[in-house]
Amino acid sequence: MSRNHEKAPIFTLSAGPVAAYPRVLRAMSSPIQYDYDAYFQGFYESVARKCSTALRVKEPTLILQYEPAAAIEAAAASLIGPDDVVLNLASGVYGKGFGYWSARYNKELVEIEVPYNEAIDPQQVDDAFKKRPDIKVVSLVHHDTPSGTINPAREIGAIVRKHGGFLLVDAVSSFGGMDIHPEDCHADIFITGPGKCLGGAPGVTMVTVSDRAWKHMEANPKAPRASVLSYLDWRHAWSKDKPFPFTPSVAEINGLDAVIDQYLEEGPEAVWQRHGLTAQACRAGMQAMGVKLWAKTEAIASPTTTAVRVPEGLTDNAILAATKALYGVAFSAGRSDTQGKLIRIGHMGPVAEPLYAVLAITAFGGALRHLGKKADLAAGIEAAMAVIDKAKKN
Amino acid sequence: MSRNHEKAPIFTLSAGPVAAYPRVLRAMSSPIQYDYDAYFQGFYESVARKCSTALRVKEPTLILQYEPAAAIEAAAASLIGPDDVVLNLASGVYGKGFGYWSARYNKELVEIEVPYNEAIDPQQVDDAFKKRPDIKVVSLVHHDTPSGTINPAREIGAIVRKHGGFLLVDAVSSFGGMDIHPEDCHADIFITGPGKCLGGAPGVTMVTVSDRAWKHMEANPKAPRASVLSYLDWRHAWSKDKPFPFTPSVAEINGLDAVIDQYLEEGPEAVWQRHGLTAQACRAGMQAMGVKLWAKTEAIASPTTTAVRVPEGLTDNAILAATKALYGVAFSAGRSDTQGKLIRIGHMGPVAEPLYAVLAITAFGGALRHLGKKADLAAGIEAAMAVIDKAKKN
Amino acid sequence: MSRNHEKAPIFTLSAGPVAAYPRVLRAMSSPIQYDYDAYFQGFYESVARKCSTALRVKEPTLILQYEPAAAIEAAAASLIGPDDVVLNLASGVYGKGFGYWSARYNKELVEIEVPYNEAIDPQQVDDAFKKRPDIKVVSLVHHDTPSGTINPAREIGAIVRKHGGFLLVDAVSSFGGMDIHPEDCHADIFITGPGKCLGGAPGVTMVTVSDRAWKHMEANPKAPRASVLSYLDWRHAWSKDKPFPFTPSVAEINGLDAVIDQYLEEGPEAVWQRHGLTAQACRAGMQAMGVKLWAKTEAIASPTTTAVRVPEGLTDNAILAATKALYGVAFSAGRSDTQGKLIRIGHMGPVAEPLYAVLAITAFGGALRHLGKKADLAAGIEAAMAVIDKAKKN
Amino acid sequence: MSRNHEKAPIFTLSAGPVAAYPRVLRAMSSPIQYDYDAYFQGFYESVARKCSTALRVKEPTLILQYEPAAAIEAAAASLIGPDDVVLNLASGVYGKGFGYWSARYNKELVEIEVPYNEAIDPQQVDDAFKKRPDIKVVSLVHHDTPSGTINPAREIGAIVRKHGGFLLVDAVSSFGGMDIHPEDCHADIFITGPGKCLGGAPGVTMVTVSDRAWKHMEANPKAPRASVLSYLDWRHAWSKDKPFPFTPSVAEINGLDAVIDQYLEEGPEAVWQRHGLTAQACRAGMQAMGVKLWAKTEAIASPTTTAVRVPEGLTDNAILAATKALYGVAFSAGRSDTQGKLIRIGHMGPVAEPLYAVLAITAFGGALRHLGKKADLAAGIEAAMAVIDKAKKN
Repeated sequence: MSRNHEKAPIFTLSAGPVAAYPRVLRAMSSPIQYDYDAYFQGFYESVARKCSTALRVKEPTLILQYEPAAAIEAAAASLIGPDDVVLNLASGVYGKGFGYWSARYNKELVEIEVPYNEAIDPQQVDDAFKKRPDIKVVSLVHHDTPSGTINPAREIGAIVRKHGGFLLVDAVSSFGGMDIHPEDCHADIFITGPGKCLGGAPGVTMVTVSDRAWKHMEANPKAPRASVLSYLDWRHAWSKDKPFPFTPSVAEINGLDAVIDQYLEEGPEAVWQRHGLTAQACRAGMQAMGVKLWAKTEAIASPTTTAVRVPEGLTDNAILAATKALYGVAFSAGRSDTQGKLIRIGHMGPVAEPLYAVLAITAFGGALRHLGKKADLAAGIEAAMAVIDKAKKN
Repeated sequence: MSRNHEKAPIFTLSAGPVAAYPRVLRAMSSPIQYDYDAYFQGFYESVARKCSTALRVKEPTLILQYEPAAAIEAAAASLIGPDDVVLNLASGVYGKGFGYWSARYNKELVEIEVPYNEAIDPQQVDDAFKKRPDIKVVSLVHHDTPSGTINPAREIGAIVRKHGGFLLVDAVSSFGGMDIHPEDCHADIFITGPGKCLGGAPGVTMVTVSDRAWKHMEANPKAPRASVLSYLDWRHAWSKDKPFPFTPSVAEINGLDAVIDQYLEEGPEAVWQRHGLTAQACRAGMQAMGVKLWAKTEAIASPTTTAVRVPEGLTDNAILAATKALYGVAFSAGRSDTQGKLIRIGHMGPVAEPLYAVLAITAFGGALRHLGKKADLAAGIEAAMAVIDKAKKN
Repeated sequence: MSRNHEKAPIFTLSAGPVAAYPRVLRAMSSPIQYDYDAYFQGFYESVARKCSTALRVKEPTLILQYEPAAAIEAAAASLIGPDDVVLNLASGVYGKGFGYWSARYNKELVEIEVPYNEAIDPQQVDDAFKKRPDIKVVSLVHHDTPSGTINPAREIGAIVRKHGGFLLVDAVSSFGGMDIHPEDCHADIFITGPGKCLGGAPGVTMVTVSDRAWKHMEANPKAPRASVLSYLDWRHAWSKDKPFPFTPSVAEINGLDAVIDQYLEEGPEAVWQRHGLTAQACRAGMQAMGVKLWAKTEAIASPTTTAVRVPEGLTDNAILAATKALYGVAFSAGRSDTQGKLIRIGHMGPVAEPLYAVLAITAFGGALRHLGKKADLAAGIEAAMAVIDKAKKN
Repeated sequence: MSRNHEKAPIFTLSAGPVAAYPRVLRAMSSPIQYDYDAYFQGFYESVARKCSTALRVKEPTLILQYEPAAAIEAAAASLIGPDDVVLNLASGVYGKGFGYWSARYNKELVEIEVPYNEAIDPQQVDDAFKKRPDIKVVSLVHHDTPSGTINPAREIGAIVRKHGGFLLVDAVSSFGGMDIHPEDCHADIFITGPGKCLGGAPGVTMVTVSDRAWKHMEANPKAPRASVLSYLDWRHAWSKDKPFPFTPSVAEINGLDAVIDQYLEEGPEAVWQRHGLTAQACRAGMQAMGVKLWAKTEAIASPTTTAVRVPEGLTDNAILAATKALYGVAFSAGRSDTQGKLIRIGHMGPVAEPLYAVLAITAFGGALRHLGKKADLAAGIEAAMAVIDKAKKN
């Protein structure tokens, strides 16, 4: 083990990568199997099918051998053809970022952008289609993690489908922490991964692709083939009869198997419930303590990440340094346009447990005081506990 | 754990992925750390530097978050500019394959191809430069795994350097199993991974890049940026002061740390020695048993993989099925052009131990007999033991 | 994995077994080595010596292949001869319990017993020796876990040594969490284990034995030999030249190795500091919340376990059930005579981190309210935070 | 990890402890649960019941928190009362050894002893009962590991039952590797453990006790209570309603759970088959190579351990040192009276796979040659392969 002068966090309450469940870590220490042997091929298929049980789709899940951001780039490369007009919905840094990838491949990029503490209004999407009936592909980040805000995927999905568009949904940090699945939002491509709400390691991506999206890709002359950017290469990789195009990340597949077992055995509803309750308690506590939420309305605040504004007169770095040094707690800063403006408390996987909200409030309040601000810690904790205790009564 | 009707191999003697060392598997079950926390950043840097100790270069190693084949594609995309003439050296399936990637980016592809059981003659490279002094980039697969043959990287490297070319070396399945390092062969890009001779999991890649190659990439207007294909994105990712462009594969980095510890603590020379001895014993035994080597001469046979010809009248699949069913042994078939013609016995990582040569010979001979062929198993084992015992005497 | 209708605790804040450090769990998954092979013998010796570094003694530590309670029984059987008068110091359930074991072997049992929320006064020990100069063996529980109280081992040890007695110290749940070592208290037998403050698994015991105690055992005709109760059998088991009398618990030895590494690498003083600070914060918070400490004075309250009185009108079981059901927190009840009267919050190993005190207070206070009691949670948390923040300033 | 100048074996083919299955090692790295929490209690019960499924008895298995040798001593202490006449059956070192423990507790010890390369003749047992109808307890080692020989437990059990005696069976190194269960041999106490044929770690023991044996213990005034030697203490420990008398070895219980899963999922018959076949191949090969079996007849040779005579002119230590140094193979020496006379090749757990017989023969033959003896390795391997291939045909 390499030495390191920095101390590891005691509590990782980040927006990801997050602490993995112990059973997932154990699974990742399983023997490495030879990918071309029938045993591993059968295992891989069973994992792909198990993912589909969790995602509530029929076809075996497409597993890509790198983390979701790469899979989103590859989705753009694979799906968006040179004749496609793309409507990019940007309510945050990740949404905005997709536009840059899209622009490499599309005919034209149309964009709806809202302030990064707001959500896309489905009506805007409908209007866009009316103005530009030639829109072919719509891209949506369900949970724009750098903002901790949720977009109305179901409503947007219904509109996109009505207009015949292809919908690409980035559900990387929402799936597994709330009630969202590909078919709920008519997603043609739905991308998620084990390293956020599912409590696994980052390193692979789960993707569902609709039949019509596969057809669109196959018809796309520019869709990558024999490439790390290719979806088509891996389409049938789950099948024992098809060789892997490249070597799959065996240990990550072992971990993915355990991630899905954990999710299905605990029960999806129970998992969503504890994510949502932890976030709700965290929001209540932070606000009672005098800290402001980043999200414009609580209705769009994510159940898997609470973003709070950096109090005036302080910097994000000072707060993060204080929670780490004083209490061993690691939170996340913002990213890009939200960096410096907010701090994010993750509620994902094993730390999506209500008491971690109390812990987060305590550490955050303690840091504020350390930096010379007042923080009504007592009020914060009482508010969080009121949320938790009310939920537990039911 | 997913169920599976296939049985796992008892002995994985494949050309990779290979069985990992127990300490590597344990490391892969370490807690997942948050990548933006200073602790993980310090750890990542220490791993990048430790890789460089193993690779015998000064700069921290470039770690890419997917398996080596993707890293080779990304190398082509990053290094080869639209004005570059590329000399591709093809002595096997992987060498040939690089040409297809190169062709996406280069101005012109020049190729030297030899039969896939032979090695590139350095003189050919010198001649090529003389004919085409505008060759800018030379690509070489050191160990063309689908053939189990080794190219003379040192000699070729000296020639390329003499002519001022950039040399890209795929040392994925040779580094760690024999005496080869980037500077030994003047490699401008040298690519290897933990999943072969180092006895780790596939899923990340270690790359060294020379200063002049970085400059060439920076000057390449087409070099990918903000992309999974980008080298430039990750150049400074080892530095605590630079954020990761995307999420690193935390568990794979944990494993990589252990992989390099294992290699350095055992001692590189000792590791190479047992790889080489196992292969030598395997070749001796196979030949004594009447099985023919694929490599035209033993001098170019890999110390990390023994490729043998499929005996006349048999198929590779029949032999592989028999060794698995009768003895629980998994070998590798050929790939693409070598598929059906040869079977490969891997000697990599923890199975690079001489007695596994005996085991391989036994299983192979047993399978031949089962399929109705004669096999002088006794002669095979005696020949292998003669090699081993002679080495142990010294 | 066996299924179970009960839910596992989210937070285990028990008096032991406690959650182990991840590196210890990983170590326990190391390959099982053959005990008679020189490799394992060398490893075992190195672990025995490493334990002695932690215990600050010279001789390799005696490692017994079961948990500490058994080792204490074996100590009584091995050390106490039929002519020995034993002074048993009972300030709690475990202290009292030793008297029953002693009585099986001793000539006569003399006992000093104090209420189980008090500590032994060293003067009493001195007085006892004056009255009964024939006292040969003195038995002391340093931290009587069922009471969460600490006895003055240093002072008592000095007195016992002055009078020439043999001192047996049970430091099972204090060593590793505070500044105590065999020679600090002139212990002739000092017993501890990896499963408490060191953050390992229960299952083996570390014992130091003074030369004079070994001589006393050797002279004891009734000292067990060829028995699970024998100390003599295992005396030289650390030596490569002596065979193990029975099979050692290989996985536990693997874990012990990591436990000691963790302790020494973090630094004993740092480890003690966080145990003590967590307990101090917990005591402050509990009292501010209106909950009473079990210990008569805070001076004798353990830095590794906080015992609080069950508030009037409630039962321990109701509180434990509520903290588990509402918040996923597992505390410990009392044992035997203290059962029903107190609840114990463990601060051992990885949960000896100040923020866990806040978490414990929150869960405890929440449970009280749930059961119809008032609990000034806010005051509790503020008091705990005041302790933590003051310490962090220094 | 402690450093060590010795090299670990590459292949551990010992008579135990043996290499554990990977899934067992992973299970041993599961979080340590608090033993008094309902979750662990439920888990413990499920493990105790699962063991009983494997052992084919109804009552939950008694799990003792140390390795089997200690459990055998405790059985003697618990079962044998001061009025009991004990018939000890000694066909080897372990059988003989039980007599010493018995003598501490019994009224009189009657012994049948045969040369240590022979087995007990059931007729002798019948005769003994006729001569001494007051025999109360009979002790039998099913597989006397230091000799690698099997006693006819079924036949002896029927005779003991006929005469009304209590039968204690040490099946530590036979259960799980061949067809033997408590009720097959009318065992009143049947002792086995996870660290031999089941491929787990040593450190706990599984015991089945008949109702009449429990009654006999309860009536035994000398049966240990509140002691590490006690069976009675742990009788009901599996029940959620009863507290554990001492702390159970949590990690070992986690491992035991996986051990039994492995056994039941693979299928007992399949497990026995591969143990038996590996041993048969090993015996055939060793004899063909000119090495003599220790067992007087092959019929009594164990399917889980092959004991071979040390060839004249050589020492066991020289051979063991050579197999380790030349090939990385660890075999076992004899113990006590068999030490120096034989070498034991273990076929237990994950190495009970036929090809390991070939590997053992190769290493053994190679060592003989290295020490100046002739060894017809080729004949040895051909003989072993003939056995394997014949079995695989069926």
